[in-house]
Amino acid sequence: MTPKVHLDDLIAALGGDLHGAGQTLIARIAPLDEADAESISFLANPRYQAQLGQTQAACVIVAPAFAEAAAARGAAIVTPDPYLYFARLTQWWAAQTRPLSPPRVHPSAVIDPGAHIGVGADIGPLAVIEAQAHIGDGARIGAHCVIGHGARVGADTRLSARVALGFNCQIGDRCILHSGVVIGADGFGFAADLKGENPGWVKIEQLGNVRIGNDVEIGANTCIDRGALADTVLEDGVKLDNQIQIGHNVHIGRHTAIAGCTAVAGSTRIGAFCTIGGAANIVGHLTLADHVHVSAATLISRSIAKPGLYSGVYPFEDNASWEKNAATLRQLHTLRTRVRDLEKKKD
Amino acid sequence: MTPKVHLDDLIAALGGDLHGAGQTLIARIAPLDEADAESISFLANPRYQAQLGQTQAACVIVAPAFAEAAAARGAAIVTPDPYLYFARLTQWWAAQTRPLSPPRVHPSAVIDPGAHIGVGADIGPLAVIEAQAHIGDGARIGAHCVIGHGARVGADTRLSARVALGFNCQIGDRCILHSGVVIGADGFGFAADLKGENPGWVKIEQLGNVRIGNDVEIGANTCIDRGALADTVLEDGVKLDNQIQIGHNVHIGRHTAIAGCTAVAGSTRIGAFCTIGGAANIVGHLTLADHVHVSAATLISRSIAKPGLYSGVYPFEDNASWEKNAATLRQLHTLRTRVRDLEKKKD
Amino acid sequence: MTPKVHLDDLIAALGGDLHGAGQTLIARIAPLDEADAESISFLANPRYQAQLGQTQAACVIVAPAFAEAAAARGAAIVTPDPYLYFARLTQWWAAQTRPLSPPRVHPSAVIDPGAHIGVGADIGPLAVIEAQAHIGDGARIGAHCVIGHGARVGADTRLSARVALGFNCQIGDRCILHSGVVIGADGFGFAADLKGENPGWVKIEQLGNVRIGNDVEIGANTCIDRGALADTVLEDGVKLDNQIQIGHNVHIGRHTAIAGCTAVAGSTRIGAFCTIGGAANIVGHLTLADHVHVSAATLISRSIAKPGLYSGVYPFEDNASWEKNAATLRQLHTLRTRVRDLEKKKD
Repeated sequence: MTPKVHLDDLIAALGGDLHGAGQTLIARIAPLDEADAESISFLANPRYQAQLGQTQAACVIVAPAFAEAAAARGAAIVTPDPYLYFARLTQWWAAQTRPLSPPRVHPSAVIDPGAHIGVGADIGPLAVIEAQAHIGDGARIGAHCVIGHGARVGADTRLSARVALGFNCQIGDRCILHSGVVIGADGFGFAADLKGENPGWVKIEQLGNVRIGNDVEIGANTCIDRGALADTVLEDGVKLDNQIQIGHNVHIGRHTAIAGCTAVAGSTRIGAFCTIGGAANIVGHLTLADHVHVSAATLISRSIAKPGLYSGVYPFEDNASWEKNAATLRQLHTLRTRVRDLEKKKD
Repeated sequence: MTPKVHLDDLIAALGGDLHGAGQTLIARIAPLDEADAESISFLANPRYQAQLGQTQAACVIVAPAFAEAAAARGAAIVTPDPYLYFARLTQWWAAQTRPLSPPRVHPSAVIDPGAHIGVGADIGPLAVIEAQAHIGDGARIGAHCVIGHGARVGADTRLSARVALGFNCQIGDRCILHSGVVIGADGFGFAADLKGENPGWVKIEQLGNVRIGNDVEIGANTCIDRGALADTVLEDGVKLDNQIQIGHNVHIGRHTAIAGCTAVAGSTRIGAFCTIGGAANIVGHLTLADHVHVSAATLISRSIAKPGLYSGVYPFEDNASWEKNAATLRQLHTLRTRVRDLEKKKD
Repeated sequence: MTPKVHLDDLIAALGGDLHGAGQTLIARIAPLDEADAESISFLANPRYQAQLGQTQAACVIVAPAFAEAAAARGAAIVTPDPYLYFARLTQWWAAQTRPLSPPRVHPSAVIDPGAHIGVGADIGPLAVIEAQAHIGDGARIGAHCVIGHGARVGADTRLSARVALGFNCQIGDRCILHSGVVIGADGFGFAADLKGENPGWVKIEQLGNVRIGNDVEIGANTCIDRGALADTVLEDGVKLDNQIQIGHNVHIGRHTAIAGCTAVAGSTRIGAFCTIGGAANIVGHLTLADHVHVSAATLISRSIAKPGLYSGVYPFEDNASWEKNAATLRQLHTLRTRVRDLEKKKD
């Protein structure tokens, strides 16, 4: 089933200095400690250096500093950034082992005659393409996707099964959207009407759209709401994991990466090259500078003007210790007062 | 593309006291600081009063207290609650700019002959309507929705693409459900069987349904589980944002609004007119009074009998400060003991 | 509408010692405090013992210790584990009241000729079954499901409407997957390429699959990502609630149960028979032992080698108290220093 490749082929495609026999056969990519005699592996983090002596891998991708050690034990590919090389290797490997089927417009898809389907685009079974929608050249629209009225999908963008792209929203080129993504649902906006006969909430129609740049990836079941008046914007190269919630009018700068289950509330601006840990929460109407890094599960409740790493989660403990600390926490400010009093008496 | 309207038309539809020329043309709605000479804007929060002197807006919606200042700079609409007026304006605007297509039953929909489709209902492409389901008059069922056996959708309720409404569940009139909503999946209920030959969990079949009132809005990818024995209930006017999880047998009082990514565990009762911040978590079997307000990301672990605002998230910091505090937190109860000892010695 | 059953029929199906008239008619299952004269109820938690004297239930399921008290007031079923008996009763009840329709392959489903459809399998309307997919005997595939190329669904497994099972992923026998589940989307993996002309992220193709054992239940809108190199694995009997995120290469041991909205980051191993509370977050590359229990909303940031209950959420308060404590928290390490200084002076 698995194809085998020669190291020579791999080097021809990806470059790197090969130490060892180009005819060595590779059947899989594996971490150092799981590699076998048909595996290629990599040493990206010097912390795992000790595994280099023990791995069964046929070939190891290493940085120049480890070239000698790696070559002493078998084949090695030497490259300045082994992790980056590994990433490119996975792409090449996927292209070998999962060839794309030739593009076709599946006869079961429901395509409005007023939609534009680009050259070489692939439309999956039971997809729905509404009027005025534009599918770029070479784009792939998975089964059960719904592309709303006037929405645009850029060239070579791939939508997995069951993505909903709302009316008038747009996605750039070479993006990847996973199953269950919802782009362009209404933002959460209501005005309170508490004085009338029927007190309650009055909907604020969301009149903006969503604009997504090029080379953006969006994980499964992530939602990006349309703007209230202006648009919600994701710049080029943004990477979102699964089950993320992006509120209306949020603006995310280029190449910012956000891990799963994070929520970004409305009108917040996140800078470029930020990383946000999983299950973080960022409240609305804030501004985060470029190169801000947020630890997992942290609530960001104020703007951050300075690059750096920010954290804020109470550390877990065995439950008995936690209960003692939690009880003390509820009285923490009285503890501060008592210390102050002690200090005064002291003087 | 954008239609332009006269202020006169807007006043005719929505009321309000117009100061200025009724023939002024409006092309868009915009915040004060983004408005141009074809924009209508609003001053809802006195905090932004300074922007009134600087905005380029053709017309500003203001409260009586600001009528003079607003009229001094251009057209103004004076109304007791500018934010509420703005909300109604967005609705009117949406109706002008996004006219609904005439209702139709799309030929690709799969409709059981035993289902009832109301007068003027719209059934989107590839929707599935099962036996005994009831679609109210004027309801709109989006593409790829699945309406289960015996489920009911009220009059004029709108389901976006890809909503799943489980068997025997019901939704009232004038509701809005966004893409990816799942109503009526099984609640999470198991009995431990640890003594048998094959220890593990035994499923508790969820025999209840979900009942949703009128004028409820439910955000993208939100889930509302069916009850275990009785029903899960959302009263009239409840507003739920995206990616919310509502456990089995939860009861949410009328006009309560819950922001995105919040989880409400099973059998909890939330009162009327509550607001729950984003990513809050409310554990099971609790009761929250009417008019309880919960800050974002707070864990509510006990019932709340008194209206008010409740909070509980450790404040974030730069990581170095946080690490120092986190280390101290783990020893907090010893700090309390040490203060007590100091106080005793003092005496 | 609701069928009525005789206690005799119920005993015949489920066993237990009946005290009272076998001809008693039962129309519903209800908690003690909501039961009426046609209800069967149960006493599982001795905490609710007082309700036994007051319930209107026609019959109560009790442990031997309560047999006398229960029989004194009406019919009773005596069994060693009343909650387990209740669970089995719900299953039997569901089978009586919600008979499955006979299996059929709906003509609107799009099934590749190279797919295998097992004997007695049910394929819902508009489902998509891709080439080389394998649907086990007696499996039920709901409306709008997408079963990817080469994916396998075990015998008697049930998929609700709108489940996406990615290519080459597999699910065992007797599993239940609820609507909106996404199995096999790409894990979140990128290498930073910050030195090139176009700095940004380079995708690491996710070359692994997802393997799910037997008797697993997965809640609505939960996502399980495919592995980066090896597979993501859920062992037999795992129960996942709604909106859970399982990262790539996670391994979850048998009969572990995880409540809603929890996130498990990549490469973490969770043992067998663990329970994880709702909205917990478990960071990547950790190992949790068997029989570890995590409280709701806790962030697990280090491996746990010892069975037990672990907690870690700041307790909520009324907002005014919280603000005082939060301000003190930010200066907590200075408080520790001040106590140390006081102690020194004391000596």
